[in-house]
Amino acid sequence: NGGVWYSCKAWVRSVWEFGKEDPNRVIFSLKVGLAVLLVSLLILVRAPYEIFGVNIIWSILTVAIMFEYTVGSTFNKGFNRALGSLLAGILAVVAAQIALCSNRVFEPIIIGISIFLVGTVTSFMKLWPSLVPYEYGFRVILFTFCLIIVSGYRMGNPIRTAMDRLYSIAIGGIVAVLVNVLVFPIWAGEQLHKELVKGFDSVADSLEECVKKYLEDDGLDHPEFSKTVMDEFPDEPAYRRCRATLNSSTKLDSLAQSAKWEPPHGRFKHFFYPWSEYVKVGAVLRYCAYEVMALHGVLHSEIQAPHDMRVMFGAEIQEAAAQAAELVRRLGKDISDMNRTLKASLLKRVYASTERLQAAIDMQSYLLTSSSSYNDKLPSSKLDSDTNLNLNPPSETYHEMMRKTSRRLYSWPSREVDAYEEDAGVTASGVLPKMKALESTASLSLATFASLLIEFVARLDHLVDAVEELSSMAKFKSEVEL
Amino acid sequence: NGGVWYSCKAWVRSVWEFGKEDPNRVIFSLKVGLAVLLVSLLILVRAPYEIFGVNIIWSILTVAIMFEYTVGSTFNKGFNRALGSLLAGILAVVAAQIALCSNRVFEPIIIGISIFLVGTVTSFMKLWPSLVPYEYGFRVILFTFCLIIVSGYRMGNPIRTAMDRLYSIAIGGIVAVLVNVLVFPIWAGEQLHKELVKGFDSVADSLEECVKKYLEDDGLDHPEFSKTVMDEFPDEPAYRRCRATLNSSTKLDSLAQSAKWEPPHGRFKHFFYPWSEYVKVGAVLRYCAYEVMALHGVLHSEIQAPHDMRVMFGAEIQEAAAQAAELVRRLGKDISDMNRTLKASLLKRVYASTERLQAAIDMQSYLLTSSSSYNDKLPSSKLDSDTNLNLNPPSETYHEMMRKTSRRLYSWPSREVDAYEEDAGVTASGVLPKMKALESTASLSLATFASLLIEFVARLDHLVDAVEELSSMAKFKSEVEL
Repeated sequence: NGGVWYSCKAWVRSVWEFGKEDPNRVIFSLKVGLAVLLVSLLILVRAPYEIFGVNIIWSILTVAIMFEYTVGSTFNKGFNRALGSLLAGILAVVAAQIALCSNRVFEPIIIGISIFLVGTVTSFMKLWPSLVPYEYGFRVILFTFCLIIVSGYRMGNPIRTAMDRLYSIAIGGIVAVLVNVLVFPIWAGEQLHKELVKGFDSVADSLEECVKKYLEDDGLDHPEFSKTVMDEFPDEPAYRRCRATLNSSTKLDSLAQSAKWEPPHGRFKHFFYPWSEYVKVGAVLRYCAYEVMALHGVLHSEIQAPHDMRVMFGAEIQEAAAQAAELVRRLGKDISDMNRTLKASLLKRVYASTERLQAAIDMQSYLLTSSSSYNDKLPSSKLDSDTNLNLNPPSETYHEMMRKTSRRLYSWPSREVDAYEEDAGVTASGVLPKMKALESTASLSLATFASLLIEFVARLDHLVDAVEELSSMAKFKSEVEL
Repeated sequence: NGGVWYSCKAWVRSVWEFGKEDPNRVIFSLKVGLAVLLVSLLILVRAPYEIFGVNIIWSILTVAIMFEYTVGSTFNKGFNRALGSLLAGILAVVAAQIALCSNRVFEPIIIGISIFLVGTVTSFMKLWPSLVPYEYGFRVILFTFCLIIVSGYRMGNPIRTAMDRLYSIAIGGIVAVLVNVLVFPIWAGEQLHKELVKGFDSVADSLEECVKKYLEDDGLDHPEFSKTVMDEFPDEPAYRRCRATLNSSTKLDSLAQSAKWEPPHGRFKHFFYPWSEYVKVGAVLRYCAYEVMALHGVLHSEIQAPHDMRVMFGAEIQEAAAQAAELVRRLGKDISDMNRTLKASLLKRVYASTERLQAAIDMQSYLLTSSSSYNDKLPSSKLDSDTNLNLNPPSETYHEMMRKTSRRLYSWPSREVDAYEEDAGVTASGVLPKMKALESTASLSLATFASLLIEFVARLDHLVDAVEELSSMAKFKSEVEL
């Protein structure tokens, strides 16, 4: 009927979209199909079957287990499998020889002990931090050893068994590697390259989005916090991508690990391409992204500067953020194009806009903290500060904050005067007028936002350095500055 | 000789330490050894071998592949393997029947096409985001299908082949599960529980460490930034643990995923224990930890408040941080002990200390930004502000900052006066006296530090909520508040 037909169509469409989003997915699937088909032909066609015999089914297993998404990780897994099988074979032959030399009665006991030992030792070793990447290899050692020694015991001649298994595994491995490399190869290096560039873009987007929202936000319709933190801020796509960047360290690591196994390819022409440098740039980029997270934190903070105060700094904040985002994007684009450009003029503009923001804050800090004394001092700008005062709804933000902060407490003391008395050395003559104190607390939130932004810019320097080092080690081609 | 003997001893000691650090590692290893030994006995001992035959080697493979660290993930992998094998068996029998019905010539062609299709479809499906956790299951489907259909083709009777394989896999699976559950079980739930508590402790430690360093830091011996970011701040162990907490989302997820497969055990007595709630608490904790990262960012920021200014707020900052860390530790301890206590008095103390910090900053903001007008207004505290002024080495921090910021630029404009002129609407009558402006910029760094700390406290509210929800869903036992 219609409903089923409709949901079927929707399903087909979503699968289609998923494939279209990254055609490598479809390519990978077809490659796996091709690889298992090729190996199966060795059995299905009569001629090779008569040569290799039943043992050839091990090569199917090998293909199915070894075939990975990227070329590098297939090499890596193949290496694990090959070395693991080899070691297991040697171990098994040695153990079998020892067992054969002994009394017929002790033979199964020696085999049993050897199996227990191999199982225990390989399992312990794969927990060792520096051996964790070879986890799969240890698994291979374990089961290959068991299979060879056990079937050798029942069928005699463990060396023969080991050999048969080894060459059928080798065939499977070769087929998997050939299909993976020769048919539309998906290179881990290329993926790593793209992933890093995506990170740059997402940090830049997220910075701009965050600043835009901060300046637009009128503080009226904040959804409940706990909802947003669980839904991961549904209306901020760039933030979520930035957060994904922060969590991408494992992904970058494993891609770099795989990329090291790959021969020079495509745009990455020379041997010993500095893949580990990508991980380092990624780390510095994450270090910058933490600052964006902090900015985002201020955006969703409970203590908020009034909207009109934000608008006052709007131009400077916007400008500084735009310049910084531009620089980050440019760095990403340079990596993407494997270019090496001088960033001096861009950096200069970024710093200039940040300077302007700093200056504006310095000016404004008078306004924010003590409006009356400011008026005394600079009577020329009386109008400004007056409008400012009128625009601030008196201590509304503070009450909002207190309501939230104290909602868990039933007997919240309205103000702990005695507590202030304690540290009279600092606060001199006691209690501040309520309103002023709180106004400045709220406006400090704005100062925090600005200084986090400035700190973000300060960190860009290191990002530029890191990218510069990557460029030189990876021999990106230089260009004259635009 | 002596050298070899010595390094050998060092090696043995490090292995010993590694095992002692977490005895579960040794237990796990011995369990794997035991499991493979038990399965091997089925072949080594004559009686079961005569019943089961050669096919029993599949159970060794199953144990070696299925045996995981925790009970939950072994169940999970066993489920994947069982369902995968079952589906593969059904598919293979269907495909084989179709092939058998056809012409003798077409049989291998149909089998080949079916292998290609299964390979392609399973590979595509395992890339689908919601199916990623079942990646292993799809691999099992693929190779089991291939093995059954291919060996069925060569040995006739695919149903018989399928059955033989299925029960030997079942035996392997049962042995793996029994050994894993009955011999010193390592529960994923227990691990998850400990991991979360560890997260609380590391956030608390890191907060205290960060504040301690901030107040101690005299700004003199900052090591080169790029070195520290690469070595991951070697002298800050708690920071590194906090960072590990931030990156632990994948670990918590997979542990929770595994824990769902586990029956009630140990302290977790009821069915449908809310393991996913642990992940949520972890998310909120991470949200707090971002604030600690931001604090740490200010600590290593390039623009720094002078040391004596930090010391002025030392008592308040220390107090607020200590209270907040205390609360976080207490939350962690409550989870650890599965207690449910009211946090009202603790929260009250945290808020009170934060309030005091806010008040101190409000006071001080007068001092920092416009000392002259402050003196006019509150002559009683003249002494305070005077000492303050004397303590600040004039604009040294700023020059330091400028040196760093501009080291990449050869022609840094000393001050872009015209740029300020542009936004004259905000800054009114032009350029501020240089010194004052910059002093306040540097001291804004202190304000940032304080307001990030305050924001951290504000977020604790949500953390308390999240822990409260976990407590009620997991039915922690209530206690009267201390």
